[in-house]
Amino acid sequence: MSRLDVFIDRMVSQRACLDYAIAQTAALPGPVYELGLGNGRTYHHMREKIAGRPIYVFERAVASHPDSTPGDDFTILGDVTETLPAALGRFGATASLIHADLGGHNLAKNDAFARQISPLVEPLLAVGGLMVSSDRMYFTGLAEQELPAGAVPGRCFIYRR
Amino acid sequence: MSRLDVFIDRMVSQRACLDYAIAQTAALPGPVYELGLGNGRTYHHMREKIAGRPIYVFERAVASHPDSTPGDDFTILGDVTETLPAALGRFGATASLIHADLGGHNLAKNDAFARQISPLVEPLLAVGGLMVSSDRMYFTGLAEQELPAGAVPGRCFIYRR
Ligand SMILES: C[S@@+](CC[C@H](N)C(=O)[O-])C[C@H]1O[C@@H](n2cnc3c(N)ncnc32)[C@H](O)[C@@H]1O
Ligand code: NI
Ligand code: NI
Repeated sequence: MSRLDVFIDRMVSQRACLDYAIAQTAALPGPVYELGLGNGRTYHHMREKIAGRPIYVFERAVASHPDSTPGDDFTILGDVTETLPAALGRFGATASLIHADLGGHNLAKNDAFARQISPLVEPLLAVGGLMVSSDRMYFTGLAEQELPAGAVPGRCFIYRR
Repeated sequence: MSRLDVFIDRMVSQRACLDYAIAQTAALPGPVYELGLGNGRTYHHMREKIAGRPIYVFERAVASHPDSTPGDDFTILGDVTETLPAALGRFGATASLIHADLGGHNLAKNDAFARQISPLVEPLLAVGGLMVSSDRMYFTGLAEQELPAGAVPGRCFIYRR
């Protein structure tokens, strides 16, 4: 597989998992969290598809496309190892959907980071809430879900509280 | 459509058009040109799929992923408005396949640039050679081809000499 093939699989899987998770959680009132803004493509997609729920973006350094940049009130600046615990104090266990795409090119590093933040992400989800991740997560109380049609196994993961 | 949707369509169309054009020109011996290296994903794909033909990359400033960076002998550094005419002197009308993905976010600018470089690209192609472009080109002697299955009209263009 070329890097182009891998990249397409990742994007297509992200979209399939997000669309599925957005629909599954549509009845929940709690906020949505985007962990890692990057270029802002998945944030743009979520903003188009999610109605009636605020979307907060967790990012270390905002460098997104202008039309995919959240307002200041919805930007939670800083390292997620610090801002996720702070969000628990502020919002409690209310999130209806959390999407994480924090990784880079180093797979071992991505995996170590996923282990590190799993216990910080887990308590933020409301009962019935979903987490969509590009990396396998290490939760103790969430159940891994079947992927929707169109998602490529291993490129995306979904967990439910 | 979200930016994620548009981006996926573009990547999927590029791959479909490249795979088609690589197969169609497999019997031609001439070199392949990649105009615009960027991150190197399409170059990586071409390198995996093309056997027996050298691939030259035209790029202003190389900033690709390490495993998708051409050797010095296959890197033609500089602005394509200067390096394409120089390539005509060096290689003549021998290219079997030319792929161009030089555009940015500004559609009007991309279109103006496509008009500017079309007469510089056209004479480089061998008879039977194909050009694949993310932007509509303005050729006088090349014929626009039907897109292969999987390509989204308007996201990719194919021309034949
Ligand atoms: C792959 S990009 C996200 C791409 C995005 N999904 C898109 O579609 O454009 C990852 C982002 O996560 C951010 N990031 C990585 N580690 C982080 C951390 N520890 N705290 C906050 N942000 C982080 C990076 O700055 C980068 O912008
Ligand atoms: Ni890498
Ligand atoms: Ni733009």
